[in-house]
Amino acid sequence: MPPRAYDQLAGHVRETFLLTSTSALLSWDQETGMPPAAGQVRAEQLALLARLAHARATDPRVGDWLLACEQDRALRDDPGAVANVRELRRDFDRATRLPPALVAELAEVASLAQQQWAQARAAADFARFRPWLERMLQLQQQQADCLAVTGQCRFDALADLYERGMNLSGLQTLFAPLRQRLVALRQRLLAGKAPHRAFAKQAVAEGRQEAFVRAVLAAFGFDPQRGRLDRSAHPFCTSTGGDVRLTTRFRTDNVLDALGSTMHEGGHGLYEQGLPLRHLGTPLGEAVSLGIHESQSRLWENHVGRSRGFWQWARPLARQHLGEVVDGFSATELWREQNCVEPGLIRVEADECTYDLHVMVRFEIETALLHGQLAVADLPACWNAKYRDHLGVTVPDDARGCLQDVHWSCGLFGYFPTYTLGNLYAAQLFAAAARQLGDLDAAFARGEFAPLRQWLQQQVHAHGRRYPPGELCERATGAPLSPEPFLHYLEQKLVAVYEL
Amino acid sequence: MPPRAYDQLAGHVRETFLLTSTSALLSWDQETGMPPAAGQVRAEQLALLARLAHARATDPRVGDWLLACEQDRALRDDPGAVANVRELRRDFDRATRLPPALVAELAEVASLAQQQWAQARAAADFARFRPWLERMLQLQQQQADCLAVTGQCRFDALADLYERGMNLSGLQTLFAPLRQRLVALRQRLLAGKAPHRAFAKQAVAEGRQEAFVRAVLAAFGFDPQRGRLDRSAHPFCTSTGGDVRLTTRFRTDNVLDALGSTMHEGGHGLYEQGLPLRHLGTPLGEAVSLGIHESQSRLWENHVGRSRGFWQWARPLARQHLGEVVDGFSATELWREQNCVEPGLIRVEADECTYDLHVMVRFEIETALLHGQLAVADLPACWNAKYRDHLGVTVPDDARGCLQDVHWSCGLFGYFPTYTLGNLYAAQLFAAAARQLGDLDAAFARGEFAPLRQWLQQQVHAHGRRYPPGELCERATGAPLSPEPFLHYLEQKLVAVYEL
Repeated sequence: MPPRAYDQLAGHVRETFLLTSTSALLSWDQETGMPPAAGQVRAEQLALLARLAHARATDPRVGDWLLACEQDRALRDDPGAVANVRELRRDFDRATRLPPALVAELAEVASLAQQQWAQARAAADFARFRPWLERMLQLQQQQADCLAVTGQCRFDALADLYERGMNLSGLQTLFAPLRQRLVALRQRLLAGKAPHRAFAKQAVAEGRQEAFVRAVLAAFGFDPQRGRLDRSAHPFCTSTGGDVRLTTRFRTDNVLDALGSTMHEGGHGLYEQGLPLRHLGTPLGEAVSLGIHESQSRLWENHVGRSRGFWQWARPLARQHLGEVVDGFSATELWREQNCVEPGLIRVEADECTYDLHVMVRFEIETALLHGQLAVADLPACWNAKYRDHLGVTVPDDARGCLQDVHWSCGLFGYFPTYTLGNLYAAQLFAAAARQLGDLDAAFARGEFAPLRQWLQQQVHAHGRRYPPGELCERATGAPLSPEPFLHYLEQKLVAVYEL
Repeated sequence: MPPRAYDQLAGHVRETFLLTSTSALLSWDQETGMPPAAGQVRAEQLALLARLAHARATDPRVGDWLLACEQDRALRDDPGAVANVRELRRDFDRATRLPPALVAELAEVASLAQQQWAQARAAADFARFRPWLERMLQLQQQQADCLAVTGQCRFDALADLYERGMNLSGLQTLFAPLRQRLVALRQRLLAGKAPHRAFAKQAVAEGRQEAFVRAVLAAFGFDPQRGRLDRSAHPFCTSTGGDVRLTTRFRTDNVLDALGSTMHEGGHGLYEQGLPLRHLGTPLGEAVSLGIHESQSRLWENHVGRSRGFWQWARPLARQHLGEVVDGFSATELWREQNCVEPGLIRVEADECTYDLHVMVRFEIETALLHGQLAVADLPACWNAKYRDHLGVTVPDDARGCLQDVHWSCGLFGYFPTYTLGNLYAAQLFAAAARQLGDLDAAFARGEFAPLRQWLQQQVHAHGRRYPPGELCERATGAPLSPEPFLHYLEQKLVAVYEL
């Protein structure tokens, strides 16, 4: 008996997975330890692997196997196989819309532009990055034009890569009221008692900070047998096939920065480690969307790591690793400081009340760039104006302005809104978990994080791409995505923090 | 005008280079930082890349391009192109003799067996490694049978992979008198004054050791813009395309171990960094043989790093980084200790007078294994008997016996003799350099290593695979390879060390 089309398809995608996970390792190395002069060859290696992976993804045999699977009645009794075929059909139809030359060029320019971005950011020199961003934007516009189906604008075509079904008008509908409520909350807090920001400024050596964040990561349940934590300029999480790589960074002027970054990337890492191993290399073994991915990082960073219970547990641990600098601060003071609201310049340092305003600035700008309503040359001025309007802050230089994020340099346009979707999913999932598991804050105070991690593993991680993100949310929480759980959670917490 | 066959060929091999250098990075990661559970997927990634690289290397178009190049009269005026075509022909003819399935299986078994070896060594448990070595030996025998041409035994077929022209009878002819003279030298030293071995046992923290070896590596001229130094169980050097990765290890019971390993791998690294960048990805940009590669590592480790001048320069540096432990030792005492001759169990810790005896044990055993005269099950007993005979030492366990080297686990049979060839090449090259550059020992005492490095770069590194190893040796030294310079150098130095 010849192998079934489904088995051939599964074997084929397994090898594609081996190539893309190899690319992930090359990129991880580029960001963590690659010597500077290796950049040109690394870009060529990544471009070649991207071309090979794309050739495999668009191999006409995949189309034949998919047709055969779709007509195979025996397969219909296996819901996992049905879901895999459905998702592989989606991937195949999308991949076959992109010319191989464009895919290779995107990978190569992304690798080089990312290196240029890092240098431009270090020098606060937008002019240095500008030609690379112009080239990348052009490639993204080409990509969007290739991908767009009837009724989709360029933004919609790209955003759909990261969050199925996300589109411009849907986001605009969601963001307008969210902005109003967040701005109103911020106003309300002005009447409250602002926390002191004294602890974060304590000078603590990097080695001590590292020991502390590693202890927190271990308590959350990140498995070092299947993952690592390293350092990079911009923290990230990537899966290199058999294991999960996190990075963080250490600042001597903000001891809470590494903690937040590590809990955030750790949340991503727990999702990757929670995916079902037996489906590795097929859609059922992959994360479903970036919004859901971000929900896991924000949940551990904010709903866990900025909770009162977390600090009751973490304070002695912080004392042990960070030393005497902790002595002047109670758990409540640390919790209040960690939840201080203050509009700032940097997205990844933003509090929960202003974070989504940073996202909205980027969303408006990338939409305008993609649709030709804004030239790259005018980006810094536009960025700075929006920061004045939306956040009321003045951008002193482009390093703390439009050069702060890596995303556009590596071709991630239409990606930023998934951060806000992640915040909304996180709040809705956390509320559902709390309904089933009882008082989570009390559990955190005892250092018990396993019940929450296991609930997330069963409700979210274990399903991979079995259900689309919206359906996954409904199954886990009993309701479609809504901004209400997020706003309710935030208003409750911040009113307490500000002692209103 | 269509592209010349030569240009098509060069473009093709450039992409093959991108794949093999990607494999090198995956292997580097496996040895330096990969979390344990990632091993299975890593083996699959390496097997896939090996299969892709082999498919490219055996692509029938390569045969067509080679034929066209060989008939292209215009090419004959370009000696570089002629050399590239000659070497690519050699690679192609060899690669087409191996079935793709065997290549993929070799890569996968090598990756898994290496992980098993590491665990078996840690547990001093040969039984755990035995089935993997049996499988690997079988694959190596298959490989040898595919590669062997008329008149070649299995050993010859494999040895030729690492050192062109090296064969069993040639090595036996070379090794017999070498052994006699080394054993005689050892006997002669017994009448001398043995150095104290007190410094190496000083306890020095890993961080201090690391700072010291990094300073030595920098003084030798290793370029950190194009390379890194990391840690692994077994030190190695690999080129990952755009940069060169070295590893070392730190022992708290032997402070000289990391220094020796780092200078050794640093010598390999200087060769890789000295290859002509403009030929990267073609034979002219590749190391010519393992014997020549080893000559560079042994030259820096022994002719430089065990010289009296080196210690005159290095002693203040050691004091700076290692601290007060250096205070009781003069430069001459450090030099004498570093050159102490004492038969031991471990090849990589062996002195220059007994090192080649370790190589000969392995050479005899791998020859017997390949030719079916020794069963893997009998390897430990055979190993232990030969160590008694050749070195007069008793092997207490397999971790310090036949499990000490990584080589056989990753399929390197016929490789060990290149270490002894490296010693002979190193001595002959160093003597030639000294004739042209004057008193090198005095230069080292002043910290001047650049003239020697530049001489090696011009005489050896710059040529890549332009000349076969024997011809390269003759061009650089004025004579064919001979054991005399090595024996002369060693006798002179050790007679002085032992104050005879």
